[in-house]
Amino acid sequence: MPRKVDHQERRSLIADALMRVAADRGLEAVSLRHVAAEAGVSAGMVQHYFRTKDEMMAFALDVVRERNQVRVTAAVARLGDDPPPRLLLRTMIAALLPLDEQTRDDGRVALAFLAYTAVRPAVAASLRKDTAQLVGFLAGLLPGPNAAEAAAGLLALMEGLGVYLLGGHYTGEQAMNVLDAQLDLLFGPSTRAWDDALPR
Amino acid sequence: MPRKVDHQERRSLIADALMRVAADRGLEAVSLRHVAAEAGVSAGMVQHYFRTKDEMMAFALDVVRERNQVRVTAAVARLGDDPPPRLLLRTMIAALLPLDEQTRDDGRVALAFLAYTAVRPAVAASLRKDTAQLVGFLAGLLPGPNAAEAAAGLLALMEGLGVYLLGGHYTGEQAMNVLDAQLDLLFGPSTRAWDDALPR
Repeated sequence: MPRKVDHQERRSLIADALMRVAADRGLEAVSLRHVAAEAGVSAGMVQHYFRTKDEMMAFALDVVRERNQVRVTAAVARLGDDPPPRLLLRTMIAALLPLDEQTRDDGRVALAFLAYTAVRPAVAASLRKDTAQLVGFLAGLLPGPNAAEAAAGLLALMEGLGVYLLGGHYTGEQAMNVLDAQLDLLFGPSTRAWDDALPR
Repeated sequence: MPRKVDHQERRSLIADALMRVAADRGLEAVSLRHVAAEAGVSAGMVQHYFRTKDEMMAFALDVVRERNQVRVTAAVARLGDDPPPRLLLRTMIAALLPLDEQTRDDGRVALAFLAYTAVRPAVAASLRKDTAQLVGFLAGLLPGPNAAEAAAGLLALMEGLGVYLLGGHYTGEQAMNVLDAQLDLLFGPSTRAWDDALPR
């Protein structure tokens, strides 16, 4: 099926160009024209794959979500079987924070998408589903009677740390210290020895 | 000085138009042309007050910061003299969360500004100064040996809750429950009686 392979390759080529433009100048600067120029194809070709700006934005977020999932899965796999809940949470959250160049690029795209959907809530339906699922999963790992609120709080803290990391308010080390202090609050400081099992 | 009054009125007229466009369509959609049309003036007039997009964005954020300050000051003043630290923190944070139409409009502008500056860090210098000052202030109200990390965590949690509120992930009540659970962690649940002193 040579025709189909060609199709997928072109889509991937355009997607990569889209992500480079978004990471470099912000998702709001992403236009048909810019993406086409970056990919070295015609504007009509890009339009064949993304008919509206909403489609392009939603696709960029899907790329980021997929990369995040791959990163989290790989980081958790390195922990081996049955890691303690605190270590599992710390590892997942560290994998999602914008702490290196690749995660920063992805984080910029995700943040731009959040700003875009704050005025177009309908576009963010899939994101709200993700949040609800993630809160449920985190709640299962947390002790205490208010696990649901604590899970939502931990997720909000992660989101806020991400925003502050992207804006250069905190260094990576400061952000990890804030996360560890929160895990101390949730699990008690006696579980802190686990922190040293992970690179900062 | 009639000339100066005219000047300020025009600037205020353009600023209001800018904020309406930003709240409605996102700060990334704000252009000379749109703002001029909304204000009913010429594009040249807008350009007289804001020479670059960065200037327009920074100005929008200043408007939001000023409104936030007015809101927080008014809410804290209603608490009377020497409110307990937990109540003071809860009141300040509730006044900053996007819980009604006015704060949601301002929150959308602030979020769009954060996304804009994530790819243009130099524009956000004043914001980083705000964050550092706020963390220092909050730390002074928090108990425990890790007050600085706890303050940074509380601020990140507030920022993340704001993002999730704007995206429709949480209702206002859910967000306040998450904030209260965090204050329980920081102050101990015995201080919770104070929560009822404030409207939800």
